[in-house]
Amino acid sequence: MSQAAKAQELLSLHNNGKLLILPNVWNPIGARMLERKGFSAVATASAAIAESLGYSDGEQIKLETMLEMITRIVRSVNIPVTADFEAGYSDSIEGLQENISRLLDTGAVGLNFEDSWDDSAHLRTIPEQVERIKAVREAADRKGVHLVINARADSFFAEGFSSDEERLEDVITRLNAYTAAGADSVYPVGRGDKETLTILRKRLSAPINVLATAKTASLKQLQELGINRVSFGPYIFRSLLAKMSAMQDEIMNMGGYEIVMDGIWSGGDVKKYLKEGKE
Amino acid sequence: MSQAAKAQELLSLHNNGKLLILPNVWNPIGARMLERKGFSAVATASAAIAESLGYSDGEQIKLETMLEMITRIVRSVNIPVTADFEAGYSDSIEGLQENISRLLDTGAVGLNFEDSWDDSAHLRTIPEQVERIKAVREAADRKGVHLVINARADSFFAEGFSSDEERLEDVITRLNAYTAAGADSVYPVGRGDKETLTILRKRLSAPINVLATAKTASLKQLQELGINRVSFGPYIFRSLLAKMSAMQDEIMNMGGYEIVMDGIWSGGDVKKYLKEGKE
Repeated sequence: MSQAAKAQELLSLHNNGKLLILPNVWNPIGARMLERKGFSAVATASAAIAESLGYSDGEQIKLETMLEMITRIVRSVNIPVTADFEAGYSDSIEGLQENISRLLDTGAVGLNFEDSWDDSAHLRTIPEQVERIKAVREAADRKGVHLVINARADSFFAEGFSSDEERLEDVITRLNAYTAAGADSVYPVGRGDKETLTILRKRLSAPINVLATAKTASLKQLQELGINRVSFGPYIFRSLLAKMSAMQDEIMNMGGYEIVMDGIWSGGDVKKYLKEGKE
Repeated sequence: MSQAAKAQELLSLHNNGKLLILPNVWNPIGARMLERKGFSAVATASAAIAESLGYSDGEQIKLETMLEMITRIVRSVNIPVTADFEAGYSDSIEGLQENISRLLDTGAVGLNFEDSWDDSAHLRTIPEQVERIKAVREAADRKGVHLVINARADSFFAEGFSSDEERLEDVITRLNAYTAAGADSVYPVGRGDKETLTILRKRLSAPINVLATAKTASLKQLQELGINRVSFGPYIFRSLLAKMSAMQDEIMNMGGYEIVMDGIWSGGDVKKYLKEGKE
C-alpha cells in the first residue's frame, strides 16, 4: 500500500463510528504485537521512546534518534503508524516543515502535534499554532500525503489560567481553531471525565482523541460518548518499568525467581511476533 | 575511570567471593535503574535487544545495530558494562578481531562469547573455539584493555550427543580449555540445578556464570555453591512482554484501565532514573 493510501486508511479510522484504540508503543516488538492481535493502527509515545533511552520527554533526545525509532517501528508493520512528534522539534516554520518532510520519510502517516513547550507549562498563541498547523499540512501536501494531524492543546496543564472553566474554554477555542487550520483530529489532553467529554463532544467539530488515565471514562463510555480515538501515552511503558523495578529489587534482595518467571513468555511465544530473517 | 580500570573492576567482581548478580537489560533505562539501585555491573541480553527490535536472536540484527544499543547503554551508566556478543558476528578470525575492536569502542569492558551457531544446535570444535578466544584476547590486548571474556559452552543444547553425561563432560572439557585460552569466567548455559552445579564447581577452575531459569538453584544456593555470577538472559524482557501482551489484550477487549494503571510509575518516579539535559 502506498504511503498516501495508508494515510487515508488512518484518516478513515477516525470517521467510521468506532473508537480507534491506540495502546502506544516505543519499539518494533510492541508494534508487531498490536498488528498481530488485530489492532488497526499503531501510535508511538515520544515520552516512552525518550525514557527508554534514559532521557526525559520534551524534545530532549535528538530528532535523528526519534526519527530512527519511528522508522524502525513503521518498517516493522503494515498497518498505519502515527508518531508522537511533540512540538515538531523546531521553533521556525522552515525548520518545522523540514522536520515534517523527514517524518514522512520514515513512512509514518500521522502525528501528534502539540502547542506547548517546557513540559506543557507554556502555550504558543493561537495564531502562532494555527500557522504551524497550516505549515505542517503544506509540508505534507508537497509530498502528496494527507498526513493525519492530531492537534493537541495543553491548556489543562499550562500556566496562566485562573479557573478550570477558563482552561476548558481555551481548549475548545484552540481545538476548533486548529481544526479550521487543517487538523484531522483534536487532542484535549489532561481531562477525560465523562462530564468534560460530554461538553467537548458537543463543542468540538473534529474527531476527538482522549488520553486514558486512571481517571478517564471507561473505553465503553468513550465509545458511547462519541469519542473517536483513545491513546495511552507512555503509561504502558511506565507500568512495565514499575514491574521491571520490582523484579530488579527482588533479585537484588536474593529473592525467588517467581517474580520474573511466572507467566513468562517462552522463546516460541515471542517468535510469533518476530520478523523472519535478518535485519 | 578509564576503560582499562573499569575492566579490572568488572574482573574483580568475579573474584571477591560474592555472587555477581546481573539482571540483564536491553536499553539505557534498565541500565540506569540497576546503577541507581546499587548493582555493581550491567549485562546486556542480545536476545532481548534483537527481539525488542522485532528480530530473532542469533546474529539476525546488524552488528551496527547491536553496537549502537551497547554504546547507548554504556554511555548511560558509570558502572562496568558487559555485552552479550553472541558468537562475535564473524566466522573469520580477522573479522572477529575487527568486531572485538568495535565492541571495545562502545566502552563495554566484558562480553559473553559463545561457541555455537544456528540457535545453539551446532558447536564449533574445541580447537577452533580456543583459537577464537585467543583472538578475542589478542584484539583486546592491542587496545590495552583486559576485556572480561565470559566463555559460553552450548553442549547442553547442541545436537550430536547421546546422553546427558556426555553433554556434561563436553561442557567441562570445553570450559576448561576456554579458560586455558584466556577466558576470565565460564558459562555452562542450560543446566542450573544444584547437583550439576556442584559437579561443575569442582571440575571448573574459572569463575562460573549461571543462567537463572525457573529450574535454577536459588540465588542463595548459588552463593553457597561458590557460583560467581548469575545472569537472567532475556527473561526479564520476556516476562515484561507477557505483561504487555495481557495489557494489549485487555484494552482490545474494552476492559478496564487497572491492568495498566495499578502500581504504575508516575513521571516523577521515572525521572529519578533519567539523565538530565539533552542527548
